[in-house]
Amino acid sequence: MRRHCGSGPTDYLTIKAMRLIQAADVIVYDDLGAQEAVEEFAAPAAERIYVGKRGQKQSIKQDAINEILVEHCSKGKQVVRLKGGCVSVFSRASSEMAALAEAGISFELVPGISSTLSAPLFAGFPVTDANCGQSFAVTSAHKPEDTQWRAFRGIDTLVLLMAGSTLPRVVELLRGAEWDMQTQVAVVRWAGTQDQQVWKGTLETIVTDTASAGPLSPCVVIVGNVVSLSH
Amino acid sequence: MRRHCGSGPTDYLTIKAMRLIQAADVIVYDDLGAQEAVEEFAAPAAERIYVGKRGQKQSIKQDAINEILVEHCSKGKQVVRLKGGCVSVFSRASSEMAALAEAGISFELVPGISSTLSAPLFAGFPVTDANCGQSFAVTSAHKPEDTQWRAFRGIDTLVLLMAGSTLPRVVELLRGAEWDMQTQVAVVRWAGTQDQQVWKGTLETIVTDTASAGPLSPCVVIVGNVVSLSH
Repeated sequence: MRRHCGSGPTDYLTIKAMRLIQAADVIVYDDLGAQEAVEEFAAPAAERIYVGKRGQKQSIKQDAINEILVEHCSKGKQVVRLKGGCVSVFSRASSEMAALAEAGISFELVPGISSTLSAPLFAGFPVTDANCGQSFAVTSAHKPEDTQWRAFRGIDTLVLLMAGSTLPRVVELLRGAEWDMQTQVAVVRWAGTQDQQVWKGTLETIVTDTASAGPLSPCVVIVGNVVSLSH
Repeated sequence: MRRHCGSGPTDYLTIKAMRLIQAADVIVYDDLGAQEAVEEFAAPAAERIYVGKRGQKQSIKQDAINEILVEHCSKGKQVVRLKGGCVSVFSRASSEMAALAEAGISFELVPGISSTLSAPLFAGFPVTDANCGQSFAVTSAHKPEDTQWRAFRGIDTLVLLMAGSTLPRVVELLRGAEWDMQTQVAVVRWAGTQDQQVWKGTLETIVTDTASAGPLSPCVVIVGNVVSLSH
């Protein structure tokens, strides 16, 4: 496992995100780092509304989150909708964007560090390389049966999100789609945190390699020979 | 064109990157935002070594950059190698990593905001969506003849980097690979800066749409119907 150099939970927030949180009247936030950013940077008087999942309990519905955003924005409040990672990638942003636009509320999308690109770095390698990674594809493995895995075969590197409980099935589907089972694989759990763990193997070995690890979520799985670039 | 909310050039630096620059003895940096970060955050006594391109002049060779890094690290200096964007994506990191590893020098890869994921947000839409963007692929369009464009056809969204001077040829190659020419396209030039410009069209129209714009670099091109999610 690669040493991770003791980062705090808000180290990967951008300066802009920090300033927006500091200036917010209302912060609507969920999981994976957002809570720590609120605790560290929100003004004492800011209203904090948690809309993430609590253990196994059903989380708040998307429509209810949309209503909260519109309600507070309509009062003229400066609202920050804070999510872990980057809003560009599997954040379900379009529903919230549509609700705000329909209500005539202006908004800005602010990028963050996405585990899609950072998890490989935390495991010691970039997601591209001139020799062995000239392209990469990103998809969710939440419902692996819904994905056309053959579509990714011509691409050097595959980054899988939400594969924590589906990895064995994904590997079988990649085998069925005639992937080279010697392709290297890295699984990065809790990327960029003090709890980070990294497993490296091949498509042939990775399910066995991670079998005793317990639940893998949250994790990023990288399938491709860029994995070999780590030192 | 979407309004861009007046960001400064270092707003998208992470808190961690800022602290590393502040603490560095030596900063080896190049283009696309790195220079501004050095000016704003480097200690007065820090040695600043620019290794980017100057206009049309040939830039410093990669081997020479590797030597600079090894030389200063070997003296026990705290060295930051600063690049615009994210080191994970088309940053030629592996050569520098190998040189450091060979010299027995420890290093950490620190993620940044990549235009790959942020340019769509700056243009008003995320790169994924549950309805129209369940996967995306990223590749360089620097040498479009070297890319197997058919390999990307089963993927919802294609993000092209370094397509500034090759966009007309890329569009022809996508046409040849039987892409739907009604697929939406956005071109984002100088993403996230005060000079940002965005063009939106389709594969059929985008070359004409951008014909009078002059050189498009640096730009990110997004091909896919997630473009329609902007308001």
